[in-house]
Amino acid sequence: MTGLLTDLYELTMAAAYFDAGRSAESATFELSIRRLPKHRDYVIVAGLQQALEYLLQLRSTTPEIDYLRALPQFARVTPAFFDYLGDFHFIGDVFAVPEGTTLFAGEPILTIRAPIIEAQIPETYLLSTITFQTLIATKASLMVRAAAGRAVVEFGTRRAHTPEAGVLAARAAYLAGCAGTSNTLAGFRFGIPVFGTSAHSWIMSYSRERDAFHQLQQVLGPHTVQLVDTYDPLNGTRLAAALGPPLWGIRLDSGDLAELSKQARAILDAAGLRDAKIMASGDLDETRIAQLVAAGAPIDVFGAGTELATSADAPTMGTIYKLVEVAGRPTAKSSEDKASLPGRKQLFRFPDRDILALADETPGGDPLLQPVILKGQLVEGARDLETIRRRAAQPVQPRPLEYSDALTALINQTRPK
Amino acid sequence: MTGLLTDLYELTMAAAYFDAGRSAESATFELSIRRLPKHRDYVIVAGLQQALEYLLQLRSTTPEIDYLRALPQFARVTPAFFDYLGDFHFIGDVFAVPEGTTLFAGEPILTIRAPIIEAQIPETYLLSTITFQTLIATKASLMVRAAAGRAVVEFGTRRAHTPEAGVLAARAAYLAGCAGTSNTLAGFRFGIPVFGTSAHSWIMSYSRERDAFHQLQQVLGPHTVQLVDTYDPLNGTRLAAALGPPLWGIRLDSGDLAELSKQARAILDAAGLRDAKIMASGDLDETRIAQLVAAGAPIDVFGAGTELATSADAPTMGTIYKLVEVAGRPTAKSSEDKASLPGRKQLFRFPDRDILALADETPGGDPLLQPVILKGQLVEGARDLETIRRRAAQPVQPRPLEYSDALTALINQTRPK
Repeated sequence: MTGLLTDLYELTMAAAYFDAGRSAESATFELSIRRLPKHRDYVIVAGLQQALEYLLQLRSTTPEIDYLRALPQFARVTPAFFDYLGDFHFIGDVFAVPEGTTLFAGEPILTIRAPIIEAQIPETYLLSTITFQTLIATKASLMVRAAAGRAVVEFGTRRAHTPEAGVLAARAAYLAGCAGTSNTLAGFRFGIPVFGTSAHSWIMSYSRERDAFHQLQQVLGPHTVQLVDTYDPLNGTRLAAALGPPLWGIRLDSGDLAELSKQARAILDAAGLRDAKIMASGDLDETRIAQLVAAGAPIDVFGAGTELATSADAPTMGTIYKLVEVAGRPTAKSSEDKASLPGRKQLFRFPDRDILALADETPGGDPLLQPVILKGQLVEGARDLETIRRRAAQPVQPRPLEYSDALTALINQTRPK
Repeated sequence: MTGLLTDLYELTMAAAYFDAGRSAESATFELSIRRLPKHRDYVIVAGLQQALEYLLQLRSTTPEIDYLRALPQFARVTPAFFDYLGDFHFIGDVFAVPEGTTLFAGEPILTIRAPIIEAQIPETYLLSTITFQTLIATKASLMVRAAAGRAVVEFGTRRAHTPEAGVLAARAAYLAGCAGTSNTLAGFRFGIPVFGTSAHSWIMSYSRERDAFHQLQQVLGPHTVQLVDTYDPLNGTRLAAALGPPLWGIRLDSGDLAELSKQARAILDAAGLRDAKIMASGDLDETRIAQLVAAGAPIDVFGAGTELATSADAPTMGTIYKLVEVAGRPTAKSSEDKASLPGRKQLFRFPDRDILALADETPGGDPLLQPVILKGQLVEGARDLETIRRRAAQPVQPRPLEYSDALTALINQTRPK
């Protein structure tokens, strides 16, 4: 992880702290949800694993440092700053809400307490990686709930904002309840179940659709998923059914999925293929999935691509990363519509509400911000994907967010001079 | 670039072609624009450079191959297939529309002619990398045009779908006319001008706003951009102005930017800082920029983040990658609303229209699909960012797309059997 994967101003600020002799000052930054994404009334937190890897592996190479040194913005900066950057490693503390947790507007996801430069530079990376995976996990959660027990498989890498984003979208979708992904690298890297069907090109590469179906069975056996809509979906289904087993099932990728799935089911059943499954895909989102479920469409697996891997109806989210304390002094900004809350905080979850309090308060409830890095060392913890999946699968219960009296008092005290 | 960064079905299809003894069959795939993104009437093509690097560097490691070998889907596949994958390198031809070119619905971006396995596997990666950068370049083009000669700087990595996507968003935004980016790694990697301002945390880290402004000047000198809205934007502007030069200018990040920029301009001018610039940011898109320009807001530089780096109002685009010819036979699919066009094609640009024709036709006009890889070797060409920027800066002229008579005849002939 290169230290250059950040906004330039993080580095000019770092230089300014260094030149001001303030690099050792302890600061606390808080990454929190200013506003929920559009069309969402909760989020499922995701992306912490990548955030931790970044913090623990952040290093810059000599050519990268030399690049900075030559930038006009750094012309007046003391040379010792570049030595500092070359030796950079994170020695601070990180507290985070576990992945898979449900959060609401105004709530913190992560706090960093570290020497101010170490806490400043990661802002850009942390916001991006946590916001993105949280958006995708939340979208997946909605789709999985809409599917009401039927499987949802993530198919969206081709629409993700870079193929590498597709790998992390697959991770986020899986932790939020998807059954697996089509992304092979995500399977290799994270142990996520991988699913494949077949491509229209496979069918088109044969002069006769039946030959394509037959040849696929020879190779994939019981894992064969026949894509039946290249020319005519019901005719394709009849051809696939006539071949008999071995067969996992068929995939519909266009047309009226409710109607086609019913007719395809009847064709498969009539051929004695009652165990053959039906997968459906094609711009599916939670609304379309709910409609198909409500219509009694006999679809066993939903393949979710574009809408899931980009969170297309809400591709952004108002997360912020704000200084809340420096050298023991609480800080806040008061910009119009963009104010922030001062002080090191803890989020306490109660059955009927969440309470945002100062970090040293003990109002009861479950403290959600847990230590994950202390003095630059990873804290052991159950952060495997299966644990996270169980957490994300719990019922979502919207709840009000209240501030503790002490936090309220601090907000009122913290005014600019 | 690992060969696993693809959908599993690309690899099961590859295994099926291999087992069927068809791996050497020549196929042509076409990556094209089925539908324009929402709210767009053109796109600026981008992402070719990353597509070429992927094709030329695609390799898989032994642990990756072993992972595939152990998947249940591959249980029946001949072991020789995994040796083939381990030795994989691309030996085909690629033809592409140059980055920075304006394209419209129904037009091809890239074609690959290669042994069918080599052309199949890259589908997922090529779609993602080209679609994403094209979306961002197009959004940037709209914002740059709205700015009517004032600079637009890309600030969006924190909102991009992963930090690495931010690097490529910066590239796409720059090639489409942005003046530069805040993404330091994009500056290092692509030679793009980098810009920085200062952070609210910098201001908040000082008890007095004036002290933060003063200290920043000491370090950044004439590159100092004072962020004035942490507490009160006009008071902040007065504090910055009172300090005098050296100063690049100020940045407004909240509130009524039209009104605030006028008042800030007056404050700066009254202090004799007529050369000090005003940068504005805060959820800017082409509509808001056009409003600010129309309102006569004295803003010199627009900082564009969230909306630009995610193409937030149109985060997806209907690009497709379809088999158009195999072993000399033209192919097409006829799925409902998802039909494709057969045959190896060329796109010819005329002053008043585009003509999509078969590859061996010569209707005149400029052929837009140019050879970029031949027999696995990169074709020399002017593909530097400055050349691409000049291309993208040309006026956009919507034009109808016509099919040649020969293509029309082939479409009518190509029906499934």
